[in-house]
Amino acid sequence: MTKETCHIDFEPIGRRAACRPGTDLLTIAREAGISISAVCGGKGTCGRCRVRVLEGDVSPLNETEREALGSAADEGMRLACQTLVRGSAKVYIPPTSLTAKQRTLVEGQSIDFDLLPPVTVTPISMQGPRLTDLQADAARIRDHIQSSASEDVVWDYAVLRTLSDDIRAQEWETNLALRDGEVVGLLKSGRAPLGLAVDLGTTKVAGYLVDLSTGSTLASEGIMNPQISYGEDVMARVAFALDSPEKAQLLEHTIVTGIGDLAAELCRQAEADPSEIVEAVVVGNTAMHHLFLGLPVRQLGNAPYLAATSDALDVKARDLGLAFAPGAYVHLLPNIAGFVGADHVATILSTGLDQAEETAIVLDIGTNTEIALHHRGRLITCSTASGPAFEGAHISCGMRAAEGAVERVEVSDGSVKYQTINDRPAVGVCGSGILDVVAQLYRNEVLDMKGGMQEGSARVRNTDNGREFVLVPADESGTGQDIVVTRADIGEIQLAKAAMRAGVNVLLAEAGITAKDVQRFVVAGAFGTYIDVQSAMDIAMFPELPLERFQQVGNAAGAGARMALLSVVARRHAADIAHKAQYVELTNDMRFTEQFTLAMFLSQDLMS
Amino acid sequence: MTKETCHIDFEPIGRRAACRPGTDLLTIAREAGISISAVCGGKGTCGRCRVRVLEGDVSPLNETEREALGSAADEGMRLACQTLVRGSAKVYIPPTSLTAKQRTLVEGQSIDFDLLPPVTVTPISMQGPRLTDLQADAARIRDHIQSSASEDVVWDYAVLRTLSDDIRAQEWETNLALRDGEVVGLLKSGRAPLGLAVDLGTTKVAGYLVDLSTGSTLASEGIMNPQISYGEDVMARVAFALDSPEKAQLLEHTIVTGIGDLAAELCRQAEADPSEIVEAVVVGNTAMHHLFLGLPVRQLGNAPYLAATSDALDVKARDLGLAFAPGAYVHLLPNIAGFVGADHVATILSTGLDQAEETAIVLDIGTNTEIALHHRGRLITCSTASGPAFEGAHISCGMRAAEGAVERVEVSDGSVKYQTINDRPAVGVCGSGILDVVAQLYRNEVLDMKGGMQEGSARVRNTDNGREFVLVPADESGTGQDIVVTRADIGEIQLAKAAMRAGVNVLLAEAGITAKDVQRFVVAGAFGTYIDVQSAMDIAMFPELPLERFQQVGNAAGAGARMALLSVVARRHAADIAHKAQYVELTNDMRFTEQFTLAMFLSQDLMS
Repeated sequence: MTKETCHIDFEPIGRRAACRPGTDLLTIAREAGISISAVCGGKGTCGRCRVRVLEGDVSPLNETEREALGSAADEGMRLACQTLVRGSAKVYIPPTSLTAKQRTLVEGQSIDFDLLPPVTVTPISMQGPRLTDLQADAARIRDHIQSSASEDVVWDYAVLRTLSDDIRAQEWETNLALRDGEVVGLLKSGRAPLGLAVDLGTTKVAGYLVDLSTGSTLASEGIMNPQISYGEDVMARVAFALDSPEKAQLLEHTIVTGIGDLAAELCRQAEADPSEIVEAVVVGNTAMHHLFLGLPVRQLGNAPYLAATSDALDVKARDLGLAFAPGAYVHLLPNIAGFVGADHVATILSTGLDQAEETAIVLDIGTNTEIALHHRGRLITCSTASGPAFEGAHISCGMRAAEGAVERVEVSDGSVKYQTINDRPAVGVCGSGILDVVAQLYRNEVLDMKGGMQEGSARVRNTDNGREFVLVPADESGTGQDIVVTRADIGEIQLAKAAMRAGVNVLLAEAGITAKDVQRFVVAGAFGTYIDVQSAMDIAMFPELPLERFQQVGNAAGAGARMALLSVVARRHAADIAHKAQYVELTNDMRFTEQFTLAMFLSQDLMS
Repeated sequence: MTKETCHIDFEPIGRRAACRPGTDLLTIAREAGISISAVCGGKGTCGRCRVRVLEGDVSPLNETEREALGSAADEGMRLACQTLVRGSAKVYIPPTSLTAKQRTLVEGQSIDFDLLPPVTVTPISMQGPRLTDLQADAARIRDHIQSSASEDVVWDYAVLRTLSDDIRAQEWETNLALRDGEVVGLLKSGRAPLGLAVDLGTTKVAGYLVDLSTGSTLASEGIMNPQISYGEDVMARVAFALDSPEKAQLLEHTIVTGIGDLAAELCRQAEADPSEIVEAVVVGNTAMHHLFLGLPVRQLGNAPYLAATSDALDVKARDLGLAFAPGAYVHLLPNIAGFVGADHVATILSTGLDQAEETAIVLDIGTNTEIALHHRGRLITCSTASGPAFEGAHISCGMRAAEGAVERVEVSDGSVKYQTINDRPAVGVCGSGILDVVAQLYRNEVLDMKGGMQEGSARVRNTDNGREFVLVPADESGTGQDIVVTRADIGEIQLAKAAMRAGVNVLLAEAGITAKDVQRFVVAGAFGTYIDVQSAMDIAMFPELPLERFQQVGNAAGAGARMALLSVVARRHAADIAHKAQYVELTNDMRFTEQFTLAMFLSQDLMS
């Protein structure tokens, strides 16, 4: 083994990385900016970071890999986290192992509300000082605008630090960004004050750049949460943060950098500069909220799972390490509980759930699914651990909603039709696809109500690990291998949908009503928007209701973040929501256990 | 010349510093924490950084040194900034070249005022969360204290960052430091909230550690302003800052570090920790204020000499780089004008100048002397460039008020009696000493009213540069050389005292009164406290008034800073003072030019 630098070529993305022999491929890829999936944080247990070494000398397959990879090991697959390079090499990363940019919903929906942004600009054009007029710069400007404004003006310290130079460079003509009487920035004359809304999800981060003076969205973009390399779900990340203060800092730094980069990219698209962002709103679940702010998570990661704070917060962007306007604030919407976060408050806000007379439910489907029920003025919420199956994890051929993922499936008379994202050859199956598969197989009686797979179909075959259904045969697939759905996969979907449905039923029971009373059933989030609602009803994931009562709203949390960015009234409303919301902890709720057991069946018949 | 590390031993302080050959002695000394005087910032022009190389090989004397040192070069003196080491060496630093810890006034005076500190503590002792009680930590504590407090409680972000861990470590028993409803820190149960008051002078920095709950001063300490290595007066430092953003940052960092160290030292003396400091007040002249805060100084360094801001400010200590309680604020008192700063506001505050019916003047003597006159409700201020002569600069044998400085002088019948600080052999003469010399020589007719030195005294001798008076002959002195006062030195004192007196006279003229109307004449500052008032009257530096009308109050600015630390009423009063104060710019004032010319004479007869 030599100590010299060697080079690793990553295919098919075509990136070359320099490294030292002895380094593992996961580390090398990360350092090269390639996000490889690693739920376990590189311990070799999750089996997500599969790669194939095409050329070059690497460490031999170890026991950890053999266990995690099973038969894939015989086909030449390796775990990036376990494979140490010994010299230059060429490595293939299958799309299923990548966490990089994928289809993410950033559209949300549009809601009517009054534009009352927290930051407004006051254009000024004034004379500079003369020898006979010795007022300090800040006082001179303050007096100039106080003749027209009624409120007291105070200066943010960071604005003061460059005020005298800036105002002279702009020749005493500028746009003063004012927030509740505080000067948070100086914009060039004629430039609009920009706002940034961020929906900070465990998996995805959606950003919107907004003109605060008109309310229009100038650019929007979705990225993967870059923290994903350090654990795919909330608990894995909290555990990572609890490992050491340095790791907690790394998570904080990673997401702050990610949001900073996202802001820069949005500004680039809108031909603006991040220093023109005078206000931001960030919503996320409680864990993402805490990890972003660097708040302690020990009490959040252990029963009884308490937030450090649940109130709305205004934090200086600079205190978070975000380089926006010098005095810009980041506003954090309030959280409801340890596992019902500000993102759900934003979802309730933007869907207007608590504003109508009707009985309504909103479900924000994710690794944790947050559910809220509004009934006769009561707002009841819960969070249920639906797991990452619908994001493609824990599914043998599962993948995220990326290119080549099977997203729609129809089975009839033994023949299978399917559709892939961007019509590329199939490489795996994403959440909406697997949901369709289960519903279609159940409808075609290939599955029984317990999820058991029946023989008889030409596509069903027996393996050492039980039966499996061949969704895409090897000769059609983009991987050259069969894309299958196993009995174990069906079980994962049953667990996921049972958790959601049981959560819904507990809320209904808490309100003393039944599913039939629900007049509006809102499904939020990217996955929720792409799914076939009929499929979800077919397997009793959703209650049986007329289709028109369902509403798929896309990124409602992002839309709520934009509302809070544009309206101080919306912020007050969000505070009311968080204050009013009742939280039901399902962990110790007997009703949940009972409903969960029943909801494991694919039939609606057992559901009340 | 070798590239290895060599060692320099500095005597008599006995510190050893490691360095690379080719480095200059000034840099080596600074890096070793030894503050050597350097008005010019190391350019070799001021001649202040004199040292003697006792052993070892260094670069030969250069032309710059020869010019700056004159005859001292022949006696083996070197300039530290020009002398490059070639290997290990032993270097003697004369006391006159050191800017290190010296006698500095930190006592101030005591004034009665109500204790109304901006930060108070609320002790709490409460139950932690249980499984049935899922409130967030911050909300739990807030609700606990809001049952007893009426105001809304908000959390400083930095406090939140450790709240959950801290409150558990303290087992839900803590002292909450509250500032206007904001939680700025958590103190251990039973610990008092501490405050830090700082009088940030161009030359000296006085710090006071105060118990905010009782108002008592726990420790006080004076240090030299460590920025002094980069220029001795305000203008030199502003010029240094304008050289480059890096140099401005260096100045900022230097004083922030200095104040941080001072706070740590005060805490050590009081057996406390800087994290227990929940509030600080800093007062300084406008330039020190700006350089400390990192505010732009270009507009302050050029006519019409404008402050970036003159208002009182509350800045988070962390924004300044000071590690106090996580949410602690530093309060900056308001400035009056470009050259009448917050320190003078503090002086007016603590002397109660504007609170009495009587006509009163306060003089805060320094490199710039600030003067305020209160007469029938009017408060008029000015600043006059009295120069550093009274701090020992520009005086041939001048030095600061450090050990071995001649501080009192009496001349009668040709014999000279003198007193030195700490009764050590004389090494130079400080401000009060030189004032006495001038007054005594004038009284004994060795000087005429123009400052001209008369022959006849055995101690007066002619040199190439004019006459000089031998104050301490070589055989008595601690340096082995004569300590003399030259005609040029007398001239420096004349310039300094003329500036002060002319300033006073302009203010009197502005108010339409004469010196005789002044019922109280307050002399503030360290120098002002040590001087002989009679000497100052003898040479017409002060107007001729009954001695009992004079009051020497020590560090009145520091006392004012402590008042503002302990009382929000005092802060409001300070804002009133700054608002009410009228500023007279002397630069273009014909009256000043006229009075200055007359005040150059040593006689009171020419003064109105």
